[in-house]
Amino acid sequence: MSKSQQPLMSEITPQTEDFSRWYLDVVRKAELADYSPVKGCMVIRPYGYAIWELIQQQLDKRFKDTGHVNAYFPLFIPESLIMREAAHVEGFAPQVAWVTRGGDEELEERLVVRPTSEAIIGTMYAKWIQSWRDLPVLINQWANVVRWEKVTRPFLRTTEFLWQEGHTAHETEAEAEEETLKMLGVYKEFAENVLAMPVLDGQKSSSEKFAGASRTYSIEALMGDGRALQAGTSHNLGQNFARAFEIRFQGRDKALQYAWTTSWGVSTRLIGGVIMAHGDDSGLILPPKIAPYQVVIVPIQRGNWQETVLPKAKAVQADLQSLGVRVFLDAREEFTPGWKFAEWEMRGVPLRLEIGPKDIEKGQVVLARRDTREKMPTPLAELQPRVTSLLDEIQQALLARAIKFREEHTSSSATWDEFTTAMEGRPGYVVARWCGRDVCEAEIKSETQATIRNLPFQQVPGGVCVHCGQPAVTDARFAKSY
Amino acid sequence: MSKSQQPLMSEITPQTEDFSRWYLDVVRKAELADYSPVKGCMVIRPYGYAIWELIQQQLDKRFKDTGHVNAYFPLFIPESLIMREAAHVEGFAPQVAWVTRGGDEELEERLVVRPTSEAIIGTMYAKWIQSWRDLPVLINQWANVVRWEKVTRPFLRTTEFLWQEGHTAHETEAEAEEETLKMLGVYKEFAENVLAMPVLDGQKSSSEKFAGASRTYSIEALMGDGRALQAGTSHNLGQNFARAFEIRFQGRDKALQYAWTTSWGVSTRLIGGVIMAHGDDSGLILPPKIAPYQVVIVPIQRGNWQETVLPKAKAVQADLQSLGVRVFLDAREEFTPGWKFAEWEMRGVPLRLEIGPKDIEKGQVVLARRDTREKMPTPLAELQPRVTSLLDEIQQALLARAIKFREEHTSSSATWDEFTTAMEGRPGYVVARWCGRDVCEAEIKSETQATIRNLPFQQVPGGVCVHCGQPAVTDARFAKSY
Repeated sequence: MSKSQQPLMSEITPQTEDFSRWYLDVVRKAELADYSPVKGCMVIRPYGYAIWELIQQQLDKRFKDTGHVNAYFPLFIPESLIMREAAHVEGFAPQVAWVTRGGDEELEERLVVRPTSEAIIGTMYAKWIQSWRDLPVLINQWANVVRWEKVTRPFLRTTEFLWQEGHTAHETEAEAEEETLKMLGVYKEFAENVLAMPVLDGQKSSSEKFAGASRTYSIEALMGDGRALQAGTSHNLGQNFARAFEIRFQGRDKALQYAWTTSWGVSTRLIGGVIMAHGDDSGLILPPKIAPYQVVIVPIQRGNWQETVLPKAKAVQADLQSLGVRVFLDAREEFTPGWKFAEWEMRGVPLRLEIGPKDIEKGQVVLARRDTREKMPTPLAELQPRVTSLLDEIQQALLARAIKFREEHTSSSATWDEFTTAMEGRPGYVVARWCGRDVCEAEIKSETQATIRNLPFQQVPGGVCVHCGQPAVTDARFAKSY
Repeated sequence: MSKSQQPLMSEITPQTEDFSRWYLDVVRKAELADYSPVKGCMVIRPYGYAIWELIQQQLDKRFKDTGHVNAYFPLFIPESLIMREAAHVEGFAPQVAWVTRGGDEELEERLVVRPTSEAIIGTMYAKWIQSWRDLPVLINQWANVVRWEKVTRPFLRTTEFLWQEGHTAHETEAEAEEETLKMLGVYKEFAENVLAMPVLDGQKSSSEKFAGASRTYSIEALMGDGRALQAGTSHNLGQNFARAFEIRFQGRDKALQYAWTTSWGVSTRLIGGVIMAHGDDSGLILPPKIAPYQVVIVPIQRGNWQETVLPKAKAVQADLQSLGVRVFLDAREEFTPGWKFAEWEMRGVPLRLEIGPKDIEKGQVVLARRDTREKMPTPLAELQPRVTSLLDEIQQALLARAIKFREEHTSSSATWDEFTTAMEGRPGYVVARWCGRDVCEAEIKSETQATIRNLPFQQVPGGVCVHCGQPAVTDARFAKSY
């Protein structure tokens, strides 16, 4: 069946009926990703990959503006290397892919396909760093990583995924902590200003720390179903990896000492976050800053439209492209304008521009916003400034709407009764007092499915734990999560 | 030993003494790449990776300008899939890495770490392509690939390397051939205009075809030691992969038919080509278009230079950066200007800009070209246009020099005596008549180490083969190669 014979793209499961199916429908029908014949691995299709390219470009600029450079380290890590940091290997060993043969030969030492690169990068840093003058080392890598997952979902959790991993080494503990928090700040600013996805930044509880880290910080975003998504993490690794991999340097005082290291990463999971933070029953809604097409032009196919409407549509496209706007002109003959409207809505294009014979008579086009569905006849003379300001407005409106949604889905609970009641259904965040104990956190999870997403930076003791009644050490942000 | 205590960077093996050691010295001392603890795998260090980023950006733009989009396909290929194209699996099976365990379990089906992605991409194309309206499909992927190599050399041949692989599907054989040659043309234009590396484009002999291709074309560059480097390939895959992976579509005539596919790729090997095409005994010489730093500013540390010279150097840096020039200001105190001159020469920066107290008195700076070593006092008032025009000149000069070198290292041989004499030492290309037979090609290789790099597009029969004396079908370009 060719595409033009397929039913309208409106056949997406409604969010309220089944959010999870809605998500999978959008991923597949918007052609963001597809299942592959490789278990747990997805194909990122051109439309989804174009979003990733826009994410990469805008993040990479931020990394470079904060003094980082890119490099590339091997995909494979010898078993003996990854074994060197005890907590790290314990955390990752159950979920790695093993290469055991190369060519026709059984390998003497098995290789891990990198689940993350602390071990291989730490080994190289030990070679490169000798003196305090060699510090800081501020390197980022864009790469694929593999984690053998039992249950997978496109973008959110797949066996292979794309990410960036920053790895830095510093002279002092304070500088490492500063870097860890600086990059968390970069992630937060990026999530909010580029993805229009508000996030809570804070510290992970000790049970949720990265394997081998001293402290892990995260940004957490709230999805349309009230569940939280960990959207990025930044780890202060202390001297743990420096000791394991012997990253030592001669200090200003001539004494040999261990470096302080950090690592931080975000992945293609961000695309899943964008889908679930903004989408609606018609499909995807993309923030203009990461929309592969910010404007889609749909010519109305009436009369001899190819002689009358199409040239005008092409001129409009060129005008907008000259401003740097990403524009697709959908001149396909085999689809009706109505079909195209539904398709591009489903694919989340922020602005639709309709142009037909009557519009040309009036010297106008019709703009339609994806987020509000508002239709606005717009004189051609005003089109250029109107489009750029509308794209800004949409970007802002999506963020504002997501912040409002989060406010409406954040509550606080003083008692366990309140907490369990709030956690029924899909409540968003519940802020509550917590005792700081792993075992209590685990009980809360098993009783309510809620986990601590992160803790505020300011941890103020006092009062009692919402669950166990023991003295509380801090507020904690609880939610059901992906 | 800290870097400032190391001897001057001039300690590179001279090319004439040992070209291969010269190459490895440059790769390591210019900090382009480093050996890793993973057999056959290298680390691409920030300076080397910055070159790759510039290559990527400029190539990617060309791919998009010719209508291609990027996507991402899985790293792993199930064994049963890669087995489907017989010639393909025969070509690649001996050199693949096998994943046999995931997490704690032995896999039911082994996975190949992709050596190239025809199999996995073909499988997806079979899903995506139903009608002639779905064609052409023009997708590129930037990815890492793995080939289990016995003998490796940084950038030129490593177990893992980075590359791009274009994979396209077309309605007709003619369109596939057009695409194959178009992308070969993109590679040639890029190699010459961006890498300043002249290349011979032509068709591979049948023994050197890509495993599974109908025809393979290549671009071949000549290195400073007179050996050729295959710098890029473009394959017309005919219907071979379409048949193996069932990429079928309903044609305009309603009949179901197999698509015609192509693939084409270049890799981080290009960096090895640039090193060996332009470098000299002082180290690397980078074409400005791919130089991470196009200009390095070295302030002369005399008197209170930090109050007098340094502010001026920073102003000059800002002026040049405002033009889009990539500038590094080397204000490190622990190194002398002489040490810095040698270091940045070794690292191939096209232009050095010296500025000292006397220069400031005269209202000038001193520019020094890496390629000619010419030193040019330049009035500050003329600096901006002078730098941009010099960068252009250097780019052109490197290409002109490489073309001249190739001309001086290309000869033709009519007899086998002439041929063997020419092939002694490091002669560059020898053009000779050839019979077209694999066995004759193999004999020539075993007797002289020379291989057919490629054949001219116009294959004119006549005369006799330089080796066997049988009727010749074409000229062939012979060289020793990497």
